[in-house]
Amino acid sequence: MFDLFYQSRRIVLVRLLAVCLFVSVLSTVPLADARIRRYKWEVKYEYQSPDCYKKLVIAINGRTPGPSIIAQQNDTIIVELRNSLLTENVAIHWHGIRQKGTPWFDGTEGVTQCPILPGDTFTYQFVVDRPGTYLYHAHYGMQREAGLYGSIRVSLPDGESEPFSYDFDRSIILNDWYHKSAYEQATGLSSIPFVWVGEPQSLLIQGRGRFNCSSPSVEPSSCNATNPECSPYVLTVVPGKTYRLRISSLTALSALSFEIEGHNMTVVEADGHNVEPFVMKNLFIYSGETYSVLIEADQDPSRNYWASVAVVGRNRTTPNGLAIFNYYPNHPRRSPPTVPPPGPIWNDVTPRIAQSLSIKAREGYIHPHPLKPDRVIVFLNTQNKINGHIRWSVNNVSFEHPHTPYLIALKENLLHGIEQNPPPSGYDFVNYDIFSVAKNVNATTSNSIYRLQFNTTVDIILQNANTMTPNNSETHPWHLHGHNFWVLGYGTGKFDMYNDPKNYNLVNPIMKNTVPVHPYGWTALRFRTDNPGVWAFHCHIESHFYMGMGVVFEEGIEKVGQLPTSIMGCGETKGFQRP
Amino acid sequence: MFDLFYQSRRIVLVRLLAVCLFVSVLSTVPLADARIRRYKWEVKYEYQSPDCYKKLVIAINGRTPGPSIIAQQNDTIIVELRNSLLTENVAIHWHGIRQKGTPWFDGTEGVTQCPILPGDTFTYQFVVDRPGTYLYHAHYGMQREAGLYGSIRVSLPDGESEPFSYDFDRSIILNDWYHKSAYEQATGLSSIPFVWVGEPQSLLIQGRGRFNCSSPSVEPSSCNATNPECSPYVLTVVPGKTYRLRISSLTALSALSFEIEGHNMTVVEADGHNVEPFVMKNLFIYSGETYSVLIEADQDPSRNYWASVAVVGRNRTTPNGLAIFNYYPNHPRRSPPTVPPPGPIWNDVTPRIAQSLSIKAREGYIHPHPLKPDRVIVFLNTQNKINGHIRWSVNNVSFEHPHTPYLIALKENLLHGIEQNPPPSGYDFVNYDIFSVAKNVNATTSNSIYRLQFNTTVDIILQNANTMTPNNSETHPWHLHGHNFWVLGYGTGKFDMYNDPKNYNLVNPIMKNTVPVHPYGWTALRFRTDNPGVWAFHCHIESHFYMGMGVVFEEGIEKVGQLPTSIMGCGETKGFQRP
Repeated sequence: MFDLFYQSRRIVLVRLLAVCLFVSVLSTVPLADARIRRYKWEVKYEYQSPDCYKKLVIAINGRTPGPSIIAQQNDTIIVELRNSLLTENVAIHWHGIRQKGTPWFDGTEGVTQCPILPGDTFTYQFVVDRPGTYLYHAHYGMQREAGLYGSIRVSLPDGESEPFSYDFDRSIILNDWYHKSAYEQATGLSSIPFVWVGEPQSLLIQGRGRFNCSSPSVEPSSCNATNPECSPYVLTVVPGKTYRLRISSLTALSALSFEIEGHNMTVVEADGHNVEPFVMKNLFIYSGETYSVLIEADQDPSRNYWASVAVVGRNRTTPNGLAIFNYYPNHPRRSPPTVPPPGPIWNDVTPRIAQSLSIKAREGYIHPHPLKPDRVIVFLNTQNKINGHIRWSVNNVSFEHPHTPYLIALKENLLHGIEQNPPPSGYDFVNYDIFSVAKNVNATTSNSIYRLQFNTTVDIILQNANTMTPNNSETHPWHLHGHNFWVLGYGTGKFDMYNDPKNYNLVNPIMKNTVPVHPYGWTALRFRTDNPGVWAFHCHIESHFYMGMGVVFEEGIEKVGQLPTSIMGCGETKGFQRP
Repeated sequence: MFDLFYQSRRIVLVRLLAVCLFVSVLSTVPLADARIRRYKWEVKYEYQSPDCYKKLVIAINGRTPGPSIIAQQNDTIIVELRNSLLTENVAIHWHGIRQKGTPWFDGTEGVTQCPILPGDTFTYQFVVDRPGTYLYHAHYGMQREAGLYGSIRVSLPDGESEPFSYDFDRSIILNDWYHKSAYEQATGLSSIPFVWVGEPQSLLIQGRGRFNCSSPSVEPSSCNATNPECSPYVLTVVPGKTYRLRISSLTALSALSFEIEGHNMTVVEADGHNVEPFVMKNLFIYSGETYSVLIEADQDPSRNYWASVAVVGRNRTTPNGLAIFNYYPNHPRRSPPTVPPPGPIWNDVTPRIAQSLSIKAREGYIHPHPLKPDRVIVFLNTQNKINGHIRWSVNNVSFEHPHTPYLIALKENLLHGIEQNPPPSGYDFVNYDIFSVAKNVNATTSNSIYRLQFNTTVDIILQNANTMTPNNSETHPWHLHGHNFWVLGYGTGKFDMYNDPKNYNLVNPIMKNTVPVHPYGWTALRFRTDNPGVWAFHCHIESHFYMGMGVVFEEGIEKVGQLPTSIMGCGETKGFQRP
């Protein structure tokens, strides 16, 4: 029924689109309850100084973060993306948008589309069918780290309201920031011996951070502490008012803790789903996650307060990122009289697991979920060496992109570049010791994918393990394209497939699109294969995915409509014409 | 007749190629007098330290300069180029090779082909139909500066010999080297305000130079003076022997002077043509030029000597580049006991013009030239501001690439992205003052091209002028694709179209493919439009071409054979199928 509704609405939209083009309307056009929102973006290298240190960023219309997409549920977003990079292609993923009926516009290079060439204009068009806080970012090579990202805010249709109230709505994206280019980082990761770029130089709040320009070996000409581009982000509040703050993370590497000095935060939304409210002094957030918190401006209004973000999960060398929580009418640049909060102890996992467990669907907003899975897949996350390269693997398979994007290859039967043996659905549960360094001598790279039966229920168990360093296990935020999943549970140690499912939260599991798997822990998810297409599922740490930490799911490929030729042009689809 | 010969030879080659593929022969295969020489190249970013400073280079099979192509006249070169860059396309130009019958393999992105995508393998195939010293290098964005270049040496067929004798044959490429990436440079050049990268950090001889690692603001970890990658290039000679040294320049910016302490050089070849020999203490060489000089190892053999390269034409801040001219059996790393030669005074143009005038075709090797042109085009070279950007222009038109490569657009009638008004064939000779800063308020950017009548004779006058800086005029080495041209003359000041042609050298003009236009001077060339195709003609300074200092010629497009689809895939040719 949804499909029928969707189809007829699409016809209307297409007609309206034609009208819009005719009258050259470039802003927004109302349509009953849904609108078309058009954006013209130019992607280009620019010199910017987000943390006072001048480096090349990939900007959209001169900005990083790029322009925000502000829309209402069921609006159609049209982004005309012009690639003005000199020699480099691009692709943009709409993170958290399910792309129902438009799997070809998911923006995942190598999975759903060919990259967009320099000089080309590519038009993304999709419906934002759920309210909530989402993101967009480059999904090609490691371009996201170069600053190509932004936020998507989808509000409810006029007349509908959230089950919580607030006076103002604000968005910030948290990020970590490197001074080396994404090229330099990627080259190091693929080198023998492996060269790691190290910890980030700074943390950014809404694209602003602060590097210490007087550090030794910083050329004075490339760092200017008084550059307005790196003045701290200011969130101005009116005393007594309540703020909805949408907080997202797009870090390349870091798990973060965010807090506002002296203010509690009530978590009400996670990845576009209403959360049974709970109060935190500091919010842990992983790359790819989005949250809404409510903050009351109920403290002494005669001063400003620090908003602070700190690295957790790694023995941090990156200084905390700071913004100013400015009580009107204090001067927005007036420094708070206090020492900024240091953030939590980096290696205490307990409160992080506790927060994960606290996130449950809000009463009245619980999406009914299937009680049993049709298929269970366990993904053992390991770090290992393959042909001398350090790689991340899932069940001993390290992902590599095929030359022809899967969606096109599978739909148009251009399969010969893709390995046909399915990757493993589990690992040696009995004998594998997740607490010690394993050799994983059988690890291989492969572009084979998981083909899932359409309209079935799949459970995924993400199982963490020791890395190649003794007594070390990292946090991995896994992001699923094209779906929301129910988060059934988290645990520590090796997942016990007989007993652990008994403790699943089947009462009010939250739906999310990104979820952490904690050190030496496991995370259990459930989703319905109800979205015809080909979808990436991967660790959202930029370098981890680059090093193979991901898989791809196909479901209902035969139900995918005719692919637009605009997504083609690479690999086997170069000059491709439908037979 | 040539064509007939060529065609029949091609058929033989194609058949042979099939056989070769069948037996999987990857090296060289003899064929009467011509061979097929196959190369498999992988293009990839790597960290290297050509001048002791570690930075990303684009290497071929791990090397910069890339592998040398060593062939005999009439050999067929097949290069299977795999693009293993992460997000960046590539294209390689075969500099000095005329591409008779294969204009689609000239490797000039935007002119003769679409760029090669990451993951793609593109096969270049062409005949090296003339003996001599040639080059290859990236011809896309500013990738050449990242180290993507190498040499092509074509010898005479067995049994034929040059009109000069030598015992050994050696090649070196001279280059200047920047520590900033080509991206950073290009972004600065396109910025408002304009940001110039400045003078190069070092000069390389055959990919090796020496940066002072103890300079302030150099991170110790990124510079290592003892790295063997930056030990000086050593040219070992046996006392009493004569060496043919092939010297090429692929500088991004610098005009150079090359000398070997205590040794004269007899110039015998320029750009693949035999030169009436003349002796120089130091050789001036411009980006894109190649020379062969003969050097006798006739000095005191008990020591080594410096080979030194110095910047001329600019008030140099780049230290001279040094190599060791090593007399066997002295240790190749033994420093000469002398101070390296400082090189000539940078701003003395007189000896540079004198060298240009000395280069004449060798007796017995004078190519007969048409006595009169059918068309004369004058190209005024200026620097100006267009829409706030600093650009280089030719007759007030600053070149920009179209979205669809010309060769394909013209051959397949995909013209709508290309401006149809022809660019001007001259400038206001009477009123324009080449000695002062001109406003050039009518300057525009355009992708329009010069369409030349097939099989006619065209004279080109390159006219230099003042830049935007008072009392400054730069040297520009212009390179013509697809042809050799006769160099008819050089002069100082404004070209006088009535009197200057009377002084043309019509007796023994040398043929070249790259020629300098000296400060405030002019250079006159003549060529035959006898090579069906579309050909770039541009300043070989990487940043100048990027900033618009070039033109494109079309000739005999209707005679161009069927284009390979491998060159398509961008702009209007995305998914293009022949009607």
